[in-house]
Amino acid sequence: MSEKQILNIVKIGGNVIDNPEALESFLDKLSKMPRPFILVHGGGALATKLSQKLGVEVKMVEGRRVTDTQMIKIATMVYAGLINKKITALLQRRKLNAIGLSGADAACITSKKREDKNIDWGYVGDVTSVNASFIESLLNIYAIPVFCAITYGEKGELLNTNADTVASALAKAMAQIYREKYEVRLIYCFEKEGVMENPEDTTSLIKKLDKKSFLSLKQKGTVAKGMTPKLENAFAALEGGVAQVVVKQADNLLNDIQTLLTL
Amino acid sequence: MSEKQILNIVKIGGNVIDNPEALESFLDKLSKMPRPFILVHGGGALATKLSQKLGVEVKMVEGRRVTDTQMIKIATMVYAGLINKKITALLQRRKLNAIGLSGADAACITSKKREDKNIDWGYVGDVTSVNASFIESLLNIYAIPVFCAITYGEKGELLNTNADTVASALAKAMAQIYREKYEVRLIYCFEKEGVMENPEDTTSLIKKLDKKSFLSLKQKGTVAKGMTPKLENAFAALEGGVAQVVVKQADNLLNDIQTLLTL
Repeated sequence: MSEKQILNIVKIGGNVIDNPEALESFLDKLSKMPRPFILVHGGGALATKLSQKLGVEVKMVEGRRVTDTQMIKIATMVYAGLINKKITALLQRRKLNAIGLSGADAACITSKKREDKNIDWGYVGDVTSVNASFIESLLNIYAIPVFCAITYGEKGELLNTNADTVASALAKAMAQIYREKYEVRLIYCFEKEGVMENPEDTTSLIKKLDKKSFLSLKQKGTVAKGMTPKLENAFAALEGGVAQVVVKQADNLLNDIQTLLTL
Repeated sequence: MSEKQILNIVKIGGNVIDNPEALESFLDKLSKMPRPFILVHGGGALATKLSQKLGVEVKMVEGRRVTDTQMIKIATMVYAGLINKKITALLQRRKLNAIGLSGADAACITSKKREDKNIDWGYVGDVTSVNASFIESLLNIYAIPVFCAITYGEKGELLNTNADTVASALAKAMAQIYREKYEVRLIYCFEKEGVMENPEDTTSLIKKLDKKSFLSLKQKGTVAKGMTPKLENAFAALEGGVAQVVVKQADNLLNDIQTLLTL
């Protein structure tokens, strides 16, 4: 069997996107990463700021955004427009052949409107499929896909999706469909160095965390609420055939200060 | 020599984009068009509406938008985000494999900031190059590129560009680089059936217009001011190797009620 290529899927969030210096510094590091890779970006604070300016009420339930007709337009403008094209241009400036995409483009990431008896989430979608063969075609023509988390709903609508889930779904799809070709690695960049034994102690980084230990930390309440879905997405990726998943700071992209997750 | 494929490049403007029914009807017709084709869309009234809501002043000089720092952000949100992804989703709904792009994506359309001693146009760019080989790669993987008129500046910035010019530049580049493979046709859709002998008389459609007659109509003042740059772009395309250029109503996409331009 021929040796597998490593395909890195890197996800960044608001803490990098909202800070121009952090973004430039991260993209410098990203440009040194071996190719192929895929970048997934979240939203950041811009959509909230814009809705406030436009007088559109921001509704949050359990830390998640309710996305009404006005809000999906704002999300599409900010995520698929402003942020996605800005990152694409900044990568092109570094001679990386970035191509900015939403899930609607070539129906790369399709989703289903979330059904919830208790809450109408509006235009929020959960990923149903990934057009891995089209993404593979893009990698074959040396493009670097940069995905925002706007996905393509089953009824042809644009839906707002959690960016961590998008990254996990992309990683799983590429791992499953191209298992002979790619060893897929998923890198979640976030605020901290990784998962902490003690959130108050910055030296308590857990270098390796298996699922059982995660569940126990979760039960003890050591894992922060916002962190739990990210780690659940991470373990789902491992269970779905992704070879390696780490959580780390964007600044540490090229070193191994991180938490390596294992099953 | 093998027979050439026809590559249609279709451009639509505000009169289609701003009217949901006209847009749906146009996309129905577009979906019946033989492939491959490329769609280019302008901006429409949404960017102006959004700037007004945000209290950003819209500055126009000679009917052209001055694009300051705030305005390029709005243009990127509206053109590359909202409109581009909406059209992409509507095409996907029709089972067309649309992929929405700006000029920054894979550096498909690069431009140079306009220099003008008299007016600071801000983030306005004139097209300098087209990444025809990447666009060809997309056509080869059965994607339908949908371009907004945000281009990628030489200094790595996003620039606002005239959509008619983008369509003309794309057509010329594809015609020149792939002259053995494609017969490129450029279709400008706009408000009227075509160029009119007498703008007041809807039955005075000029079926064929050569450059000499255009220049004479222009001198007589028969060609409306807004129409002149469109027709200049059209003749530039013909001079640049594009096989056929027509101006017509979006509604007439599939019939021959149109003005055919010839050199």
